[in-house]
Amino acid sequence: MRSASDWRSVVAEPPTAVGLLGGGVIGAGWAARFLLNGVDVRLYDPAPDAGRRLEEMLANARRAYRRLTLTPLPAEGRLTVVDALEAAVAGVDLVQESTPERLELKQRLLAAVSRAAGPETIICSSTSGLRPSQLQADMTQPERLAVGHPFNPVYLLPLVEVCGGAQTAPETLDRAEALYASVGMHPLRVRTEIDGFIADRLLEALWREALWLVHDDVATVEEVDDAIRYGAGLRWAIMGTFLTYRIAGGQSGMRHFMEQFGPALSAPWTKLVDVPELTPSFLDKLDAQSDAQADGLSVGELERLRDDCLVAILQGLRTHDTASGRTLAGWEQGLLARVDGTSAGSDGQPAGPLELVRREVPPEWIDYNGHVHESRYLQMFGDATDALLRRLGVDQAYVAGGHSYYTVETHLSHLQQLTAGERVRVLTQVLDQDERRLHVFHSLTREHDHEPVATAEQMLIHVDTSAARAAPVREPVGARVGALAAAHAALPAPRQAGRRIGLRS
Amino acid sequence: MRSASDWRSVVAEPPTAVGLLGGGVIGAGWAARFLLNGVDVRLYDPAPDAGRRLEEMLANARRAYRRLTLTPLPAEGRLTVVDALEAAVAGVDLVQESTPERLELKQRLLAAVSRAAGPETIICSSTSGLRPSQLQADMTQPERLAVGHPFNPVYLLPLVEVCGGAQTAPETLDRAEALYASVGMHPLRVRTEIDGFIADRLLEALWREALWLVHDDVATVEEVDDAIRYGAGLRWAIMGTFLTYRIAGGQSGMRHFMEQFGPALSAPWTKLVDVPELTPSFLDKLDAQSDAQADGLSVGELERLRDDCLVAILQGLRTHDTASGRTLAGWEQGLLARVDGTSAGSDGQPAGPLELVRREVPPEWIDYNGHVHESRYLQMFGDATDALLRRLGVDQAYVAGGHSYYTVETHLSHLQQLTAGERVRVLTQVLDQDERRLHVFHSLTREHDHEPVATAEQMLIHVDTSAARAAPVREPVGARVGALAAAHAALPAPRQAGRRIGLRS
Repeated sequence: MRSASDWRSVVAEPPTAVGLLGGGVIGAGWAARFLLNGVDVRLYDPAPDAGRRLEEMLANARRAYRRLTLTPLPAEGRLTVVDALEAAVAGVDLVQESTPERLELKQRLLAAVSRAAGPETIICSSTSGLRPSQLQADMTQPERLAVGHPFNPVYLLPLVEVCGGAQTAPETLDRAEALYASVGMHPLRVRTEIDGFIADRLLEALWREALWLVHDDVATVEEVDDAIRYGAGLRWAIMGTFLTYRIAGGQSGMRHFMEQFGPALSAPWTKLVDVPELTPSFLDKLDAQSDAQADGLSVGELERLRDDCLVAILQGLRTHDTASGRTLAGWEQGLLARVDGTSAGSDGQPAGPLELVRREVPPEWIDYNGHVHESRYLQMFGDATDALLRRLGVDQAYVAGGHSYYTVETHLSHLQQLTAGERVRVLTQVLDQDERRLHVFHSLTREHDHEPVATAEQMLIHVDTSAARAAPVREPVGARVGALAAAHAALPAPRQAGRRIGLRS
Repeated sequence: MRSASDWRSVVAEPPTAVGLLGGGVIGAGWAARFLLNGVDVRLYDPAPDAGRRLEEMLANARRAYRRLTLTPLPAEGRLTVVDALEAAVAGVDLVQESTPERLELKQRLLAAVSRAAGPETIICSSTSGLRPSQLQADMTQPERLAVGHPFNPVYLLPLVEVCGGAQTAPETLDRAEALYASVGMHPLRVRTEIDGFIADRLLEALWREALWLVHDDVATVEEVDDAIRYGAGLRWAIMGTFLTYRIAGGQSGMRHFMEQFGPALSAPWTKLVDVPELTPSFLDKLDAQSDAQADGLSVGELERLRDDCLVAILQGLRTHDTASGRTLAGWEQGLLARVDGTSAGSDGQPAGPLELVRREVPPEWIDYNGHVHESRYLQMFGDATDALLRRLGVDQAYVAGGHSYYTVETHLSHLQQLTAGERVRVLTQVLDQDERRLHVFHSLTREHDHEPVATAEQMLIHVDTSAARAAPVREPVGARVGALAAAHAALPAPRQAGRRIGLRS
């Protein structure tokens, strides 16, 4: 069911096609994000295992997106692995370069891109630290280059730093930001061109200090990580560092915090000056401690755990319409606008039950008996009811006009058990209707099956929401409800409908 | 409903009483955490507004805990504000000092505590950077001093760094850790005594770099915060920094990551050497930018937003049994063990409906119509069924033995509407039973009302979980079910029970 934040302004349409140079951790992450947003991807990477790495990343991303949102995703974009740079960049809206951090390599590739790409193509580099003014040095159209620096996993983390060089046109930065926002990202304009931009300067400061703590045997890698994730890391997902400290300063704001805690900055705490030398014995220590911390979990297992938790955090932040949760809500609303745009005007209802929900059962829905919690069945049925209402014309404007349908009764029957990872769908049938009531029946089945796993019979009442009482349905909703009920009148009555609960008849 | 992680080993009982010195942001946070865990608190703070600040903090903490867990909380501890240090520390299990970061002040207070406290009392300092060896210098019983460094908000963030000085006894550290774990925290033992311990060294490195970025007009405070919270901040809540980078290194582990990215450490990115001078004009800039970022939200509003998001993140991590979510699950299991311990052996069932669930409606349960989502009603009813089953003896051992009750049918009726913040309860009545079936009826009402807001009639089947089929109930559960049904037989039949759904009779 949608939260209020879904009604925010719709972001732009995503691009039709992008060209990607490099299919490593970052390049494959870009590919996954674009493909799952319905964008065609042309990937150029000469490495022999690029295709396999991309498939692994894409499998992780598909899994994460199925958990991330109940909003219907567009059909996946088409992936084409090409064997020449020119084939990747011709005719695309955006070229995204994600090759190793070597200046002359990037300069050479970007110069080749600028010769091969069309005049409308935006050209972005994923560099985490090289300045765009250097990158665009040899390009024929340097005004179309920008840095678009993402963070791993690219398909889940919203941040992308957008930075132009001396020759970059302002329109290039605007277009790059719009393209990134259209696939669910949060572009952060870096207004001053500096090495490392903003985020990596902060990450690096913390990372150097972390290395010193391990180097000096003050803490192990696991202890350092625990010092972050059980404490400040929880806050950093929400508010960053300045707003957090503003709160710590109490009612008197940032100035009070600085007066109170500023002097501590000159305490001899951090080992800021140097970088520990990466001697063989220090690398051995890091390696051994990291193995101990991973405790036998493979990188793939760690990736999926990380993604599951990121999804849970993003969903949690969405309910409070803040930080990355707001980015997620805006993206969902963009997806929804596209879905509603294609279906709202349709007439000629299908004669069979409507298939309105299709999803995978996520592991967090499993209860202590090892089965899906009963409230999650009702969540899926509620989503089907929402989708039905949208299809009938109960949209943002209708609800804003003071009318809606409310559920007054639900009868759930549990017939089989589900386990995590199963793909299911909800089939919905209108049993009856009048001007104030809508009687529906949902059947949840496995994806290619017709045997119900669970069913829900529901009675909905049409209400005047300001008066908080039942009221006749308005047009065009009423006519659509009548047409759908007529189309469904010939369907057989479900076995679970119209029943009472009891031990004795 | 409980996840598998609830069955982990139970943490120790919390202390009976603690003495707190200082009631600022940290001291009041400690008070809230202890009080909500049922621990009596004696607070000494000479500041005239200490009592008011504590009440504000406690109101926030109560609000957060109601959202944080469905597990019943113990009765709140008793708060006594005392007017002398001696009155705060006599006869308590733990003294926690949270006064300003001035060495001679802390030394003087801790020396006074060590003279006034009983011989069994553990004495801890919340200092964020002073070494325990210095703090214990003037104490008569220095072996009982430890640092217990928490993070704001203390009632929600699990991390507490535990560090001993040269004269600290090892048992003191063990007992301090057990006390902190008993109130839901994650103690991190700091094995090497250094200024700033582990977490503040990391925080400070990032904070200094953040100040430089603002000082040099590279970014505003809001842009710095966005560079964290839309990106790496999301990962830091889950895995810290080393495990995150291990994943980024791919299949070859930490060594590969260091080989690939280690050289970047010597790039001239971060301004590590100096601290920006806190000139009036720099402080003005910070102040103005921070005001702009807060965008009219008061500190109280920001605190509640932060807490809501922390709760959502903690709950999200709990579903994946990792990081702080694991701490939360362990704490809940400790709470549950205490509840079950008091009720498991009880006989003589009450004659009225059982009140098994009591909670506040959180804002994230509200749907786009402004009402509680239907699946959340079923979540509350499911919680009541769980609580009923626990009371009847369907506990961890019973489920582990291959038996449980499964819900097969549910009939929900919605009679009134709820809004966020309302306090509700679920009253539960057994309608009927036989050796394989249990027919129950739940009524959700406002806390001091008897009019149902929603009702749920449920049929449960007793199952042999390994054979996945219905099976007769085992003892002692069967006898308890029978006794409760007999006690409830005289209750009037609820109006909503035994009904069918339909437009026409």
